[in-house]
Amino acid sequence: MAFTRRNLLAAAPAATAITVSGPSMAQSQLSAQQVSLSRQAPGFYRYKVGDIEVTAVHDGFARWPLEGFVRNAELAEVKKAMEAAFFPQDALPITFTTLVLNAGGRLTLIDTGNGDSGAPTSGTWMANFKAAGFDPAQVNTVIISHFHGDHINGLRLKDGTAVFPNAEVMVPAAEWAYWMDDGKMASAPEGLKAGFANVRRVFGPMAKDVKQYEPGKEIAPGVTAVAAPGHTPGHTTYVVSSGSGKLMVMSDITNHPALFVRNPDWQAVFDMDGNQARDTRRKLLDMAAVERVQVAFYHAPFPATGHIAKNGNGYELVPVQWMPSI
Amino acid sequence: MAFTRRNLLAAAPAATAITVSGPSMAQSQLSAQQVSLSRQAPGFYRYKVGDIEVTAVHDGFARWPLEGFVRNAELAEVKKAMEAAFFPQDALPITFTTLVLNAGGRLTLIDTGNGDSGAPTSGTWMANFKAAGFDPAQVNTVIISHFHGDHINGLRLKDGTAVFPNAEVMVPAAEWAYWMDDGKMASAPEGLKAGFANVRRVFGPMAKDVKQYEPGKEIAPGVTAVAAPGHTPGHTTYVVSSGSGKLMVMSDITNHPALFVRNPDWQAVFDMDGNQARDTRRKLLDMAAVERVQVAFYHAPFPATGHIAKNGNGYELVPVQWMPSI
Repeated sequence: MAFTRRNLLAAAPAATAITVSGPSMAQSQLSAQQVSLSRQAPGFYRYKVGDIEVTAVHDGFARWPLEGFVRNAELAEVKKAMEAAFFPQDALPITFTTLVLNAGGRLTLIDTGNGDSGAPTSGTWMANFKAAGFDPAQVNTVIISHFHGDHINGLRLKDGTAVFPNAEVMVPAAEWAYWMDDGKMASAPEGLKAGFANVRRVFGPMAKDVKQYEPGKEIAPGVTAVAAPGHTPGHTTYVVSSGSGKLMVMSDITNHPALFVRNPDWQAVFDMDGNQARDTRRKLLDMAAVERVQVAFYHAPFPATGHIAKNGNGYELVPVQWMPSI
Repeated sequence: MAFTRRNLLAAAPAATAITVSGPSMAQSQLSAQQVSLSRQAPGFYRYKVGDIEVTAVHDGFARWPLEGFVRNAELAEVKKAMEAAFFPQDALPITFTTLVLNAGGRLTLIDTGNGDSGAPTSGTWMANFKAAGFDPAQVNTVIISHFHGDHINGLRLKDGTAVFPNAEVMVPAAEWAYWMDDGKMASAPEGLKAGFANVRRVFGPMAKDVKQYEPGKEIAPGVTAVAAPGHTPGHTTYVVSSGSGKLMVMSDITNHPALFVRNPDWQAVFDMDGNQARDTRRKLLDMAAVERVQVAFYHAPFPATGHIAKNGNGYELVPVQWMPSI
């Protein structure tokens, strides 16, 4: 989802029940944008999974008001989790990190970031992608995990421009079936209609070329799709394998790990089917912990990769140590 | 210390008791140096402490054989800590991160990295410093925390070149008194003599210009020195303050946090007075946890800053979330 109030509503089946009464987004974004003349290093980070070179590409962040964000936890409990993570008490800084897979020169993206449709503190994806040495015309394949705006809006600018002119675009068949169904759109709660409209804005002009994929299959070199429904009907995760290397790409099975890896039963407002999302989250986190496999999360702090350790009734994400060599 | 076997011995008062029987450094460094044509993003990270802009500058890493590394813990216990951090079982990847403080255009360094005297996987400091937009001729002040090679060798190249031609160099008076004392050098265990010689190599040509500082005083704008003996006799930490911003610069009160923040009673072979180092470590970690103040550690994973949380009988370092804006 693009993190706007409108799309928060669009993401929530029971939109009328949501009240956003934290600090206004305009206010919190302003404080986040205080500009320094000095620049940060570019937001990309490389690591290997066997012979596949992975580049994590950062797309900035959005501060999300805390109140009402977790459906089934008391605000005081959520604030405790924020305190444990040394975060502010009013708003959660949610980051966006996509993956570029380079398999022998063949480039596959997993998700695309916010494009020019997100919060003002996001939208840095293209600058970071280019700083990493890539050109959008080189991209062979774009794999989409699900149809929330912060994952698909990078495919098409507001003015209609297709961002990856030479790429095959692959989407989960179950996601396509849901969001492209005119009957489902017509009967959707009012607040969800903007989400349907955005999916049509992005995919409409390329609809005949979009390739739908099923879970359980290798859909690109080394990339196997794994069904992970709940967050959205067709939400998908991936196992990237090469030689002895393995990476579980967790997509949005959690929003920020400091809240939802630690407390896997908590349900964010973005989870369309909260109970199913929780079951999927527990299953995949447990698998990652048992296998001690490297993981990547779309909404984990950059560079958004690490390992999962069991911790009480929940888990924790142990980030990888930043390494200067790849 | 430069992470060579010779200097490991030099760092250890009871040098003859040390056996390094892990994988050879040559072997482990080779595997770390497998080069990819793709580059990593430059190793610098910026954050604000009040009006002071801090830039963490990475100087690479050295893999240190695990066996014999912790004086007072069983190898099996150390391996458990490595497993919990998802590190390999044979060698610890110890990183080096210095700080540049920019206070209204006045540049102060805290420590200088390995220069060209460290492990082949280190020595990237100057490239990262320049990538951050700095020039060594701009540096006004260099503050040194203690006289181990990985903190001072960046001051002077092997060929004798002074790296920061215009900088005032400030050192702890207690550290100077110890390492520059000819009597102490003469009576030092054989394995410690190389450390004494290196201190003289670095500081000898500038000895008359070096400024000695005492703890408990503001030694540069916003920087107060705090005595932290044990790791070395004059080992010093700092409080950086500006407005409501505060940062505790922990220097080497711990080596890698995954081992020594988690287990503050463990003593690394680099701690010259192990018991005193442990007392200092516990005191400063406890202060950081109680105050919930931001901290920086020289040997924490890049960008080497976060907060300290109490965890059982030890602590944990909660890294800051990488932010694209400063």
